[in-house]
Amino acid sequence: MAAVGFCDHLVLARVLALLGGDDAAARSICASPDVSALGADGAVTRWTVGQMRATRGSLEQVQNGLNVSFVLASAYQVFVMQLGFALFAAGVVRPKNIVAIFLKNLFDTCIAGLAFYLVGYAFAFGAKDGSSNGFIGNWDFALSFTDGSAGQTGLLPPWHLFIWNWSFCSAATTILSGSIAERATFSSYTIYAAIMPAWVYPVVAHWLWSPYGWLSARNTADRILGIGAIDYAGSGVVHLVGGTAALVGSIVVGPRAGRFSGEGVSARLYRSTAAPQLYLMGTLLLWFGWYGFNPGSRLEIADDISSTVVGRTAVTTTLSACSGALTSLLISYSRHKVWDLLSTCMGVLAGLVSVTSGCSVIEPWAAIICGFVAAFVCEGGDQLLERLKIDDPVSAFPLHGLCGAWGLLFTGLLAKEGYIQQVYRVDPGHHRMGLFYGGHAKLLLCQVIAISVIVCWTASNMTALFWGLRLAGWLRVDAEKEAAGMDLAACGQFNAQGAVHVHSSKVPTTK
Amino acid sequence: MAAVGFCDHLVLARVLALLGGDDAAARSICASPDVSALGADGAVTRWTVGQMRATRGSLEQVQNGLNVSFVLASAYQVFVMQLGFALFAAGVVRPKNIVAIFLKNLFDTCIAGLAFYLVGYAFAFGAKDGSSNGFIGNWDFALSFTDGSAGQTGLLPPWHLFIWNWSFCSAATTILSGSIAERATFSSYTIYAAIMPAWVYPVVAHWLWSPYGWLSARNTADRILGIGAIDYAGSGVVHLVGGTAALVGSIVVGPRAGRFSGEGVSARLYRSTAAPQLYLMGTLLLWFGWYGFNPGSRLEIADDISSTVVGRTAVTTTLSACSGALTSLLISYSRHKVWDLLSTCMGVLAGLVSVTSGCSVIEPWAAIICGFVAAFVCEGGDQLLERLKIDDPVSAFPLHGLCGAWGLLFTGLLAKEGYIQQVYRVDPGHHRMGLFYGGHAKLLLCQVIAISVIVCWTASNMTALFWGLRLAGWLRVDAEKEAAGMDLAACGQFNAQGAVHVHSSKVPTTK
Amino acid sequence: MAAVGFCDHLVLARVLALLGGDDAAARSICASPDVSALGADGAVTRWTVGQMRATRGSLEQVQNGLNVSFVLASAYQVFVMQLGFALFAAGVVRPKNIVAIFLKNLFDTCIAGLAFYLVGYAFAFGAKDGSSNGFIGNWDFALSFTDGSAGQTGLLPPWHLFIWNWSFCSAATTILSGSIAERATFSSYTIYAAIMPAWVYPVVAHWLWSPYGWLSARNTADRILGIGAIDYAGSGVVHLVGGTAALVGSIVVGPRAGRFSGEGVSARLYRSTAAPQLYLMGTLLLWFGWYGFNPGSRLEIADDISSTVVGRTAVTTTLSACSGALTSLLISYSRHKVWDLLSTCMGVLAGLVSVTSGCSVIEPWAAIICGFVAAFVCEGGDQLLERLKIDDPVSAFPLHGLCGAWGLLFTGLLAKEGYIQQVYRVDPGHHRMGLFYGGHAKLLLCQVIAISVIVCWTASNMTALFWGLRLAGWLRVDAEKEAAGMDLAACGQFNAQGAVHVHSSKVPTTK
Repeated sequence: MAAVGFCDHLVLARVLALLGGDDAAARSICASPDVSALGADGAVTRWTVGQMRATRGSLEQVQNGLNVSFVLASAYQVFVMQLGFALFAAGVVRPKNIVAIFLKNLFDTCIAGLAFYLVGYAFAFGAKDGSSNGFIGNWDFALSFTDGSAGQTGLLPPWHLFIWNWSFCSAATTILSGSIAERATFSSYTIYAAIMPAWVYPVVAHWLWSPYGWLSARNTADRILGIGAIDYAGSGVVHLVGGTAALVGSIVVGPRAGRFSGEGVSARLYRSTAAPQLYLMGTLLLWFGWYGFNPGSRLEIADDISSTVVGRTAVTTTLSACSGALTSLLISYSRHKVWDLLSTCMGVLAGLVSVTSGCSVIEPWAAIICGFVAAFVCEGGDQLLERLKIDDPVSAFPLHGLCGAWGLLFTGLLAKEGYIQQVYRVDPGHHRMGLFYGGHAKLLLCQVIAISVIVCWTASNMTALFWGLRLAGWLRVDAEKEAAGMDLAACGQFNAQGAVHVHSSKVPTTK
Repeated sequence: MAAVGFCDHLVLARVLALLGGDDAAARSICASPDVSALGADGAVTRWTVGQMRATRGSLEQVQNGLNVSFVLASAYQVFVMQLGFALFAAGVVRPKNIVAIFLKNLFDTCIAGLAFYLVGYAFAFGAKDGSSNGFIGNWDFALSFTDGSAGQTGLLPPWHLFIWNWSFCSAATTILSGSIAERATFSSYTIYAAIMPAWVYPVVAHWLWSPYGWLSARNTADRILGIGAIDYAGSGVVHLVGGTAALVGSIVVGPRAGRFSGEGVSARLYRSTAAPQLYLMGTLLLWFGWYGFNPGSRLEIADDISSTVVGRTAVTTTLSACSGALTSLLISYSRHKVWDLLSTCMGVLAGLVSVTSGCSVIEPWAAIICGFVAAFVCEGGDQLLERLKIDDPVSAFPLHGLCGAWGLLFTGLLAKEGYIQQVYRVDPGHHRMGLFYGGHAKLLLCQVIAISVIVCWTASNMTALFWGLRLAGWLRVDAEKEAAGMDLAACGQFNAQGAVHVHSSKVPTTK
Repeated sequence: MAAVGFCDHLVLARVLALLGGDDAAARSICASPDVSALGADGAVTRWTVGQMRATRGSLEQVQNGLNVSFVLASAYQVFVMQLGFALFAAGVVRPKNIVAIFLKNLFDTCIAGLAFYLVGYAFAFGAKDGSSNGFIGNWDFALSFTDGSAGQTGLLPPWHLFIWNWSFCSAATTILSGSIAERATFSSYTIYAAIMPAWVYPVVAHWLWSPYGWLSARNTADRILGIGAIDYAGSGVVHLVGGTAALVGSIVVGPRAGRFSGEGVSARLYRSTAAPQLYLMGTLLLWFGWYGFNPGSRLEIADDISSTVVGRTAVTTTLSACSGALTSLLISYSRHKVWDLLSTCMGVLAGLVSVTSGCSVIEPWAAIICGFVAAFVCEGGDQLLERLKIDDPVSAFPLHGLCGAWGLLFTGLLAKEGYIQQVYRVDPGHHRMGLFYGGHAKLLLCQVIAISVIVCWTASNMTALFWGLRLAGWLRVDAEKEAAGMDLAACGQFNAQGAVHVHSSKVPTTK
């Protein structure tokens, strides 16, 4: 064996022996003059250190890639919820307003896309040089600085988190669409659909999800009561915000004509012929989307703790949905002696909304309790609205508002200490656990505070918005248009699905 | 350069040289007194060994994370099949029973969720301290011991496998729903929907998929004929079980009124106006879900063998679906001279069901043969039921039962030895291959045994169940309710989709 | 401590110290006689080198697995577009042709499966021993040599890329189905559906996407103008091909009876009662599928550059869809004073089609411009067809043809140099950037050439095909069948969805 580069044949032989005969590596080692000073053993050790560093670097890239892939796939599933919401709401409103609901649910995600891109995302998560304040973010408007991948410290903010957060923001925005359906104008909805993703939602998201938010359990520096409120996937940030807005909207816009007057008062208004198909599809697509919503909220899956948490979240999400559905089915059976599909669908959603806050930090059996109670909360909320003569056609407030609040409370009752430590990477102590595990109500108090401030913030903003629109005379269509239906009056289209059944004599039964 | 920790400046210089100048690493090495005994070279070598061990550990976590992510994403796709089944069945039954079908398909997955959580999963896969018996699992009821992630040896069972297996169990359970549609009571279906996921399905899953099952090709210790039966993704465990139950159910409950009597006997009963849309959507969503069902059954993708097997499985699944669809289209064209959408949809499903058993161990061209024959099996099964006057409204037995059995047989004919060794990690020998590759019918015999015991087990359990329900008078609704349709009679809802077409004079044509 | 294997107790102690006490590793090192020659330090170094090599190997397998998983998941999402196309087209044609559209969209993907498997895939990407020519691939027919996983150099071609490319090929094939709807025969569509995936599409895919294609930006050896045309995810290869075929088809088959004559000429023909539901679902499912189409086109996500590119692609795709939708909504509002759902849906698709070419190499703000212009292109194309009396029922040419061409042009205007270098791994220079970034029109020229040759190739092939079919008298159904509708005339089915509305007195209004 001849000498190679700076290795004489003895050194080369030793290098090759140490490398197990790897010729190419030996050549590269011997190509550097350092081999003389380091000796064969030292040079191979140094080469090994370098190789390991490169392997470590590649591993981190694979890890990042897996996390990006996981977050994006989850975000796409959440995006499917947009279709789920559209179908569910269309199945519940009257047939003469179905096209309008479809259109609202399609264009609000488009408006949210632009509004969240321009300012919302910056308000929610913008943190220049890794610092922000507790109330609102203020950096990276229009994604001006976004140009990176996951978790690369020191690099620019990554792209995929915008998609993830937009999909959530769209969901929060669209919740209201059904509750003002059949009588609000398109222009007022357009204004709402810009303000919600640009301002109202991002601020709440910052409070509870940014590492700088004053309520956030992820804020390790300065969080309320030293422990922060737990809203893992958004019973509060998404559903309570959307549900509260829906309540305000439906109160300010007022009930649909005939909803609480005349014969058959309080009866659900007449529904589309395709309704069962629409809300069944809507419900199952929402359920599918929730597997992106809840497990995806971990944002990481490339380590053992994360993959454990993601798996557990999928289990609790499933069991709460199952339990909510069966409970609602039985409630409606016991009341009406029929097996009601719509109640069952609403039970699924009640279970899903309410488990969204605590899904990663509760036991499976607790998820069953969570969904069980949620079914009653939703049913009770519906009856309450009925009694108060508030007309919320798609039950957005009971489903998203009340069940969202119940979810936050529930986390304060049955969150498990060990799971909280695992999910939020905190040390033991602080009595950071649900009341029933001996948590001294500290966590429960945080949850109550979270509910209160979310409701106050959303309600005050929404009241200002909708009262403003109402005073300006822009909020509600006139009685004739309402009777004709939004499809004909605003969308230039007659949704013939219910054509032969339509009551109003003002509407032609054929096109 | 001054001394650092236990390194004098000479040792430090050598350490730094070996580390390629990594200051932080050098400080950490010099902080340990061992450096004196080990010397600079030894200390760096030891540090390198430690670093490599840490890298290896992180790598295993990433590997686990990828596998968990893959299994969960596949499970969610399988969950979409629940919607696919609901839409397909709703498209095939009469319009006055669509809401009932939707409800059954929604709540059976919820019941399955609770029943499988409480006992089913433990019966199927529970194995305390890594041991079980060949007939039934018996540990981890109510997920009491589940609290881990993927593949962590010695740790608790992982969460994600529950989701995966629940999605399969739901599919097996829901297959029957259409075959007793339009005349079975809700309460009897509810009972069925608890027993199937709690008892009947889990036992078969244990036999064929647990590493301890007496029929399982994954049982390396003690499997039948030394090779075990191959049912990769469940032509047997899911489809033959569901299809056999469907046959028993439809026989015991008896045909729908008018199905085989009066004018137009044996004609398919009248269908919904939205039917083509429903079964087209159902079929394509099922096809989509099957890409979770079959390729996902590998449960791993983070190594070269797994990613090869997963990719091949996607290819064979696709080709069998395509071939089944086109064959069915041509069969129906040659018989009726029309291009029939429903036949084509059923051809897709026939191809998919039958390739499910062997999808990972056959060649692409074999998949085309598999789907080709499946189309004839399904068509023949339909004609057989017609002749035997068995009323299976959604053809669940021909599609899932017969095509499931054909799939198992087919694997015994054309499974390739090299692929079996790759998938099941077995050594050559044992004539473990399809008959046409020279397998001496040993594998084929295993497949026949599997078919026999699955049919016997399922049929005996289901006969007991449905006869019991029939004797108790709970099984079938009375003639008046059947004539009115389950939607009106049981669900309190009139599915107006078919409103203007409904025959029965007892039903009002407007609400 | 006694001696072990070839280590005396001193060597063993040293080995153990270097290994940090790893007993098993020490035993394995001492089991080899080399330890005597290498010494304790040398033996541990050699063991470390071996361990690192194994770790590196496992890491590459995980990396491959992640990429395979990413590509397959993306392909499944693209497959969902098949359902999206079917629903969208069914929502736009008249109700008496809905079943026919469903059937065409179902069986063309099946024919594409077999045709692409037999020859198409080989024409597109087959490259024996890593070499091919610029015009057409010629190897691996019927996947005869496919049997590997991702990125294993020297191994057989991987399975998953077939699934990926089939899903694209299906999309390209199905685009035409709506444009000849309501009047072309099934047999002619069948012939088309075999020739497109077997021959026309694969050749274009080879030109632009194979590393050997003469137009391909991925061809580092010999590409046009030294830089190649950029069609990242297929504005050209998929949409312009499909859209051009659709134009030729709709011209040769001629307009539907009554489309441009009689009273109410040029009005959109009457639509299904379920139409809004169908095209809304179709649009949102297509949007969902596009997140597989565009981001998935990277084919890799397991490194930092890839995950950055994938994330950015998802962002630009989203913003162009949002912008296209809102622009179309406003265009139609300004023209008709109604809020039109179908226009908004088409705006979504126009934005998606046009951003598909440049999605990975443009800035988010540029995506907004891309979608904005696309809405006008689509609207203008529709009006042009109207004026030219070309009847394209689903606007396939404006949407896929014109917006596809606009997408290619747009990339020539606003592709960013840094992003091109990142995505196509090229060195700076060559003025490889959009015109508005100072690209001297070199890239723009490549894009124009790409548009020209795609249109010429597709149009000439399609003209030959459709003229041939027309001359043979196979292309169009007779007037009576057309009036009855394809559902009744060819599919033996009366799509009752529109039953009560059907105009033709020849068709019974009840079954």
